[in-house]
Amino acid sequence: MNKITLLINCKDQSNIIATVTNFVAINGGNIIYLDQHVDTEQDIFFMRLESEFISSSFSTDKFKSSFKKEIAGKIEMKWRIYSSETKPRMALFISKYDHCLYDLLGRYNSGELNLEIPFIVSNHVDLKTIADNFNIPFYHIPVTKETKSEAEDKQLELLEKHNIDFIVLARYMQIVSSKLISKYPNKIINIHHSFLPAFVGAKPYHSAFKRGVKIIGATSHYVTEELDAGPIIEQDVAHVTHTYSIKDLIAKGRDLEKIVLANAVKLHANRKVMVYNNKTVIFS
Amino acid sequence: MNKITLLINCKDQSNIIATVTNFVAINGGNIIYLDQHVDTEQDIFFMRLESEFISSSFSTDKFKSSFKKEIAGKIEMKWRIYSSETKPRMALFISKYDHCLYDLLGRYNSGELNLEIPFIVSNHVDLKTIADNFNIPFYHIPVTKETKSEAEDKQLELLEKHNIDFIVLARYMQIVSSKLISKYPNKIINIHHSFLPAFVGAKPYHSAFKRGVKIIGATSHYVTEELDAGPIIEQDVAHVTHTYSIKDLIAKGRDLEKIVLANAVKLHANRKVMVYNNKTVIFS
Amino acid sequence: MNKITLLINCKDQSNIIATVTNFVAINGGNIIYLDQHVDTEQDIFFMRLESEFISSSFSTDKFKSSFKKEIAGKIEMKWRIYSSETKPRMALFISKYDHCLYDLLGRYNSGELNLEIPFIVSNHVDLKTIADNFNIPFYHIPVTKETKSEAEDKQLELLEKHNIDFIVLARYMQIVSSKLISKYPNKIINIHHSFLPAFVGAKPYHSAFKRGVKIIGATSHYVTEELDAGPIIEQDVAHVTHTYSIKDLIAKGRDLEKIVLANAVKLHANRKVMVYNNKTVIFS
Amino acid sequence: MNKITLLINCKDQSNIIATVTNFVAINGGNIIYLDQHVDTEQDIFFMRLESEFISSSFSTDKFKSSFKKEIAGKIEMKWRIYSSETKPRMALFISKYDHCLYDLLGRYNSGELNLEIPFIVSNHVDLKTIADNFNIPFYHIPVTKETKSEAEDKQLELLEKHNIDFIVLARYMQIVSSKLISKYPNKIINIHHSFLPAFVGAKPYHSAFKRGVKIIGATSHYVTEELDAGPIIEQDVAHVTHTYSIKDLIAKGRDLEKIVLANAVKLHANRKVMVYNNKTVIFS
Repeated sequence: MNKITLLINCKDQSNIIATVTNFVAINGGNIIYLDQHVDTEQDIFFMRLESEFISSSFSTDKFKSSFKKEIAGKIEMKWRIYSSETKPRMALFISKYDHCLYDLLGRYNSGELNLEIPFIVSNHVDLKTIADNFNIPFYHIPVTKETKSEAEDKQLELLEKHNIDFIVLARYMQIVSSKLISKYPNKIINIHHSFLPAFVGAKPYHSAFKRGVKIIGATSHYVTEELDAGPIIEQDVAHVTHTYSIKDLIAKGRDLEKIVLANAVKLHANRKVMVYNNKTVIFS
Repeated sequence: MNKITLLINCKDQSNIIATVTNFVAINGGNIIYLDQHVDTEQDIFFMRLESEFISSSFSTDKFKSSFKKEIAGKIEMKWRIYSSETKPRMALFISKYDHCLYDLLGRYNSGELNLEIPFIVSNHVDLKTIADNFNIPFYHIPVTKETKSEAEDKQLELLEKHNIDFIVLARYMQIVSSKLISKYPNKIINIHHSFLPAFVGAKPYHSAFKRGVKIIGATSHYVTEELDAGPIIEQDVAHVTHTYSIKDLIAKGRDLEKIVLANAVKLHANRKVMVYNNKTVIFS
Repeated sequence: MNKITLLINCKDQSNIIATVTNFVAINGGNIIYLDQHVDTEQDIFFMRLESEFISSSFSTDKFKSSFKKEIAGKIEMKWRIYSSETKPRMALFISKYDHCLYDLLGRYNSGELNLEIPFIVSNHVDLKTIADNFNIPFYHIPVTKETKSEAEDKQLELLEKHNIDFIVLARYMQIVSSKLISKYPNKIINIHHSFLPAFVGAKPYHSAFKRGVKIIGATSHYVTEELDAGPIIEQDVAHVTHTYSIKDLIAKGRDLEKIVLANAVKLHANRKVMVYNNKTVIFS
Repeated sequence: MNKITLLINCKDQSNIIATVTNFVAINGGNIIYLDQHVDTEQDIFFMRLESEFISSSFSTDKFKSSFKKEIAGKIEMKWRIYSSETKPRMALFISKYDHCLYDLLGRYNSGELNLEIPFIVSNHVDLKTIADNFNIPFYHIPVTKETKSEAEDKQLELLEKHNIDFIVLARYMQIVSSKLISKYPNKIINIHHSFLPAFVGAKPYHSAFKRGVKIIGATSHYVTEELDAGPIIEQDVAHVTHTYSIKDLIAKGRDLEKIVLANAVKLHANRKVMVYNNKTVIFS
């Protein structure tokens, strides 16, 4: 049995659901999931659909060609079709913090994540042992102000060589330049340790402490040119009190960061996220 | 412009989405919302669909007849079609607690609730002034062990006279008998002041205090013959500590109760709830 | 039996707890609650203490004098002593939104709030009926750009005449000037409809929608000269999705606003809040 | 500088705070934290106090003797005094699930946990590699119905040999007998994968699915003779919907389990938990 996931977005118009579901039915598919959304302000239609095909002669490539000709050729739309057989390939960028790394690798190891991790890259060697313990290739690419451009070239080379689909910055602590962003648009996932848009930039827990907030948060978002301003995928928060020191906020925040990042990674890897106008539609 | 909401559930089968969306398209409808769910264990398909019809000749009754003949006549299913012009009519059953009452009437007054409240009934007169202030007819029907059956007859008479669609027990504090339940199956909404299935029955905050839980909850559910065991519509919780007395738990709980009940009422009134096997599918 | 609440803050120093608790014991008090906090960065000590006095000769005024002489005269500190017999007097400032008003008055009516509400003031007459229903004097003081200063004079007159202790802006929708703020420092409670410091200023739900956040919030804080930047008393949040329109965000937000504001009012009225450096210590 | 933590509980009585804080002051201590609680129903007083001692001649043992003589000898109480220099020693009992194990060891490794882990014991060898990677001795003690008593003897031997202070069952999946419980009363921490007291016993996620709850939870508690009925230390919950399969509930639950267990471990290791009447007082 073959299974595909179809994502489309286009100008909102009559009969679009009927047209697409009919196409799937005619091609022998049984729809097992369908969700849709209309942004009524922008007049944009979004749909995510999963379908199973029993016929042994089914091929995802043929289905794609057919969809392109019969549907996408007639209605102007953005569309993607994924075979459930192909797992997305994720590169992990890390630095010195290990909590998100342990969390993601623990999940990866236990089969919770529907993806491949061909390698881990870091600007420091501190966490190499962890990568080794999980038997994942580790590349140390130091980054300084002077060598940043060169370092990103090395990163790009690795990414291309390993056919990477998306990048996860698991507390990478470096600002990624447009060189990488332009190659992986809405494909670089960051975890920011605040409830965005509050406390953009460095040291958000220090700012939260100073402002005396009663709740802290973490935000996972796609990286765009503007710092911490990309489309938000997932957020969560925790209540805190005046008794929390900055150190306490950081410790509490780590638990938020790892869970929020893991959820964002799962949503992306399962092709449940669509991006438009710097926002996300999450079909969960 | 006419707008209808269609809810169906049936044995899961191929092409059901395509069939129904096609039917809507052929009849001049533009689907503005569609959500579906398959219970893969029970092999049941659920769908909720909203559609707009521009044609001035459209009639909900004709559409219903046509749907019955063309779709429901061919595929065995449970189905309901509502016109958005018809607001559901809700009867409020209350006793002596006023927090859910104020909350619901405040929302009703400000236009937040898509429903009519033809009357309020209570076994006590304490809250009559509130009903008066909101200009809603108030009926006092005392209930004792001896007069319960007779009281329920009076309630039924009111319910039928006012064409009531569903009943909300806003901390009514009386057990409703099968006489009413059988006439309003999955149409009587209760708010229970615990996180069900924990603390079924009377005095759940006392039980929560005794057990030393760190979180309390509230649950809104449809009333069935078995006490506090009906299909759950909505639940929410709040963190508490050892410093909470029973009185504190009750005060904190009131906030949960009124918000959870209001959410359940909105979901039901907006026809977003489907019930099967003592569970709910919530298309929110 | 008399009961007092004592709040102090001073430079952190040795033996301060022992000194104060001893003083209370010597004066015949039995401490029923004590909480303290040290801001180790700023080196400030905070304490809140409740004590019961059985002796019929006890007088809060005498205790105050004695405390002033024996303790506050020897250790430089800020201190307040309240008798539990004296309920704080709260003025309600409202405009056109009724959800916070209904919520607060419902709680007031049922005895949940330990305070008096001598009057309600509004710049519009829309909600006068609600005040009437709850039998609370209602003053209509219109505010325009031109009449603002004059209007605030009228408000001040009312506040003084009624011996008001603190002011609650229950979605008052007007910026309060320094004329009022300087007379009621850390005694004007506002509810802002966002998770501060995100979305300061007007139309936060519109900004939240535009930014595509996955969580919205509400914040209750003391009013200071800088807009929405005063000490935070209470915050809460709710998860939202891409399906929420601005109208949906506003509706969901109303539930947060009323609960958060009510909690802040209770904390303040029960003398559980201390302010310093634009932050709060909440002894709950 | 020496630092001690003092925990006491006794019948509620006048002047107890003054008496104890005075004693600490006289002995050269500076109180840096004090929290207390009175269970007014049971008339029990609880206090937790942290104090620093600058004098180089201070000894925790001398202070204990003195406290025993001067305070505990005069007022009937339960009391414990810990030196902050002594880290509690924790034994980890595991089985086949790795998520709590990775989470705890990750925290341990990064210095977040104020404790020692002398060894890990498991009834299966599956997770030995993880223990090895973290350089913690791993003991495989198989448990069958027939060998259970013998296995517990081996466990007890290890526990005694390593001077273990408390045991954490990190999804150990075996019922611990009274043989262990009686030796470690309120010192065995379990994580149960439901919101207790709902869904006691095996397969709580299956029960939650069947009941159709809208929220799932996890509970960390001390192990007592009655299954899943011991004093609750920490609970947390997550919202779920009808779209969650049992597998989805289990995956979501894992995130709750590991965070809740880690929080409970931290509270216990930092001596912030007091137990009485099958409930906990948490001085956090």
